[in-house]
Amino acid sequence: MIETNETAKTGESLPLQQTLDSLPFNNDGLLPAIAQQHDSGRVLMMAWMNREALQETIATGRVCYYSRSRAKLWRKGETSNQVQRLIDLRLDCDGDTILLLVDQQGPACHTGRESCFYNAIRGDSVEVIEDPLIPPDQLYRR
Amino acid sequence: MIETNETAKTGESLPLQQTLDSLPFNNDGLLPAIAQQHDSGRVLMMAWMNREALQETIATGRVCYYSRSRAKLWRKGETSNQVQRLIDLRLDCDGDTILLLVDQQGPACHTGRESCFYNAIRGDSVEVIEDPLIPPDQLYRR
Repeated sequence: MIETNETAKTGESLPLQQTLDSLPFNNDGLLPAIAQQHDSGRVLMMAWMNREALQETIATGRVCYYSRSRAKLWRKGETSNQVQRLIDLRLDCDGDTILLLVDQQGPACHTGRESCFYNAIRGDSVEVIEDPLIPPDQLYRR
Repeated sequence: MIETNETAKTGESLPLQQTLDSLPFNNDGLLPAIAQQHDSGRVLMMAWMNREALQETIATGRVCYYSRSRAKLWRKGETSNQVQRLIDLRLDCDGDTILLLVDQQGPACHTGRESCFYNAIRGDSVEVIEDPLIPPDQLYRR
C-alpha cells in the first residue's frame, strides 16, 4: 500500500491504520527501527518493532520497541530511565524500515555511551571512538 | 568478540578481520546497514550487507550492499549513478547493525528523492513530505 506514495506529491497521504496494517513485517512480525536524535542528527541505535510497539509509540509519543531476546514489548527506559520521546516517525519507500526522530534522555546505549555506534573502522582495527557519558553500572541504579 | 569493546576506552581496538568474521550475521548471512549523509546528518536509506559486501565496501571505499530481491551484490549506483562514497563505517555495541557515513551522489532513493524516509505520520495519515530531486524515469538514463 505504501508504494502508492512513491508517485505522490508532497502533502498527499494514505490512511494511517490501513497503511500500518499493510507494512511488510518480517517472518517474526518485526520491522527495523532506527532512532536518530532529532536536533543533532546523531544516529543513536537500531532496534525492532512489531505492529503493537509501532501503534503504542505513535499513540503515546514514547518509543516502545519489541525486545527479541526478552520476547516482549520494551518501553525504552523502563529500567534504565533512557527514555526516548518521539518527535517524528517516518517510513521508507517500501515501508520495511522505520526512522524515529527522538529526543533521547541520557545515553541511548546500554554501555552508557550517547550512541551505540561507537566502533569505527580504522585501518586494520575496530576502534572505540567514544567514552561513556555515565558509567554503565550507574545506569540502572535509582 | 565486538562486545569486548563495551568496556574499552576510546582508542582501544580489536583486529578488523577477526571482528568482522565474528559479527552476528542473521540466518540469511546479512546485517542491516544504515546510510547517513556524512555532513548533513540526513538518514538516507537502510539496506543489507553480507560479509562479502562489507569487505568490498571497506576495501574500495564505495558502498556495496547485498540485494535480497536479486540475491547478489549490489554496488549502489551501478545502474542509477546514485553512488555512495564511504566516509566512515561504524558498528554498534553488539555488532548487529552497520552505520555508513557516506557522501551520496544524487538522490539515494529509487523514487528520485534525497532520502527513502519521505513518509511521515501526520495525525491519522501517512503523508509524503518530500518531492523528487530528479524524476525517477530520468535516474536510469545516461
